[in-house]
Amino acid sequence: MYIPTYEDMLAAHERIKPHIRRTEVRTSAYLNEVTGAELFFKCENFQEPGAFKVRGACNAVFGLDDEQAEKGVATHSSGNHASCLSYAAMRRGIPCNVVMPRTAPQAKKDTVRRYGGQITECDPSTSSREATFAEVQKATGGDFVHPYNDPRVIAGQGTCSKEFVEQTDGLDMVVAPIGGGGMISGTCLTLSKLAPECQVIAAEPEQADDAYRSFKAGHVIADDAPKTIADGLLVPLKDLTWHFVSNHVSEIYTASEQEIVDAMKLVWKHLRVVMEPSSAVPMACVLKNPDPFRGKRVGIVLTGGNVDLDRLPWMAG
Amino acid sequence: MYIPTYEDMLAAHERIKPHIRRTEVRTSAYLNEVTGAELFFKCENFQEPGAFKVRGACNAVFGLDDEQAEKGVATHSSGNHASCLSYAAMRRGIPCNVVMPRTAPQAKKDTVRRYGGQITECDPSTSSREATFAEVQKATGGDFVHPYNDPRVIAGQGTCSKEFVEQTDGLDMVVAPIGGGGMISGTCLTLSKLAPECQVIAAEPEQADDAYRSFKAGHVIADDAPKTIADGLLVPLKDLTWHFVSNHVSEIYTASEQEIVDAMKLVWKHLRVVMEPSSAVPMACVLKNPDPFRGKRVGIVLTGGNVDLDRLPWMAG
Repeated sequence: MYIPTYEDMLAAHERIKPHIRRTEVRTSAYLNEVTGAELFFKCENFQEPGAFKVRGACNAVFGLDDEQAEKGVATHSSGNHASCLSYAAMRRGIPCNVVMPRTAPQAKKDTVRRYGGQITECDPSTSSREATFAEVQKATGGDFVHPYNDPRVIAGQGTCSKEFVEQTDGLDMVVAPIGGGGMISGTCLTLSKLAPECQVIAAEPEQADDAYRSFKAGHVIADDAPKTIADGLLVPLKDLTWHFVSNHVSEIYTASEQEIVDAMKLVWKHLRVVMEPSSAVPMACVLKNPDPFRGKRVGIVLTGGNVDLDRLPWMAG
Repeated sequence: MYIPTYEDMLAAHERIKPHIRRTEVRTSAYLNEVTGAELFFKCENFQEPGAFKVRGACNAVFGLDDEQAEKGVATHSSGNHASCLSYAAMRRGIPCNVVMPRTAPQAKKDTVRRYGGQITECDPSTSSREATFAEVQKATGGDFVHPYNDPRVIAGQGTCSKEFVEQTDGLDMVVAPIGGGGMISGTCLTLSKLAPECQVIAAEPEQADDAYRSFKAGHVIADDAPKTIADGLLVPLKDLTWHFVSNHVSEIYTASEQEIVDAMKLVWKHLRVVMEPSSAVPMACVLKNPDPFRGKRVGIVLTGGNVDLDRLPWMAG
């Protein structure tokens, strides 16, 4: 297991700068008033393909040597990693093969195809996905870019908090959602060196709280098929992300489905940004546990903005 | 009739800078691809009270001498002007009285009250509004700040396009929605001096196209109670705004209700910002009439972001 270093993150930032946005940090006087904290929102939902995952994807894609690049990249994902990897590959002009369950939402498939990604459908089971992916990779020779348990990806995600501390003085803590742990790991990687006094706090849905339980137990616990509206946070920790979580995360908080939806609506209303349910989990946790945040300068990563506008969670009847 | 000057706009900018945001200009590669233009979106929906009207309101409020300031300001409005004027008055610590029809949405009343505005309700008719407003003004001595037909307000709104051209090189045109004409007048005031080669284009709902018909007829035509989803654009031109529209606007385009809703959804999806239907009218017009915009650098003002998230127009059944 190769653990990415601070220098890998710096190299990643130089590599991906032409291909990503240095996203804005936004504030709301009203949300500060509501929480008693000074909140800074890093708007990764404003990346062109709508998620921070474009950072790790671009770092992997643009780090390939020419020989490997010809064969392209491959992954399995039905979420933002699939579209961000396709986007990165499109920018380099190389193939991207994505294995997706045939049950994935049409909108997700459309986005991958819009960025030139080749989709191979599988059945919605782990065995089918693995078998299909093995075939695709054998046929294409594409380099496997894991959605999060990959040092290139984690180094890429770490560039987000580098910008965040450059843009915002004196952050006391950064709160980010945790699923597989790619964003949190990158945040730990960067802040443990660049701002060691800044705490890294993870936020997780109660209904998919495997990282919380892993953190308390001291070893990785993976759930089978958790269900939450925060559909970017369904996947479990892996060895590489567990390394960062177990060594550098200060605390993990959880929030209920209703708390996530309420926080999502509150941020949409007052920050006036479109973000995914997954991105609302940090705010939900701050609202639920205000004490540790009161009077602090709190960075919150809005991880993504790809949401089905026809099925907003507060519309569900 | 005093016509505000470029110097008034410069003075306004200095006056209001501590109280407003220099809002971001955002872009989307995908929206550029769809329109064939290079689009730049000035995000006035990101102002703290959610609309560009905070500029004119702050200019009026912070320009009062101390004696008048003690008596505060007064207006009639059920929209963004009411909340922005309340916000400006709150920042100066002076009273703000607002006359609103009792039928105005509760959310609008709540926002005005959150900013310390005093609401006096009237019946939803022009005669009741005028009589009630006269009483309120007599009782309080508040300085009347008209939502748009006021030189202080227009000079304030003009600061938006000053920032826009500072932030964005070589704009060929700026497209903004037109209702009473405050934003468009401020845009004309600033650009006719600062970037005279840059065209000012107004965008209006077909169902409230009084400015379009005025522009073609050469005199002001005011409609009685037009109906459109773009509820910020219901009011007619007045003498001061007509001055700017008739002298400096290059063209007025219109869009249907469905085109406005489609454009709104498209911008929400790809720019990932929350904006009002009124703010979608320029994009709707660009999509409907692509030829004049193709290959050009087009600035679009996203005028406001106050929308009822429980009643989004594409949800209406």
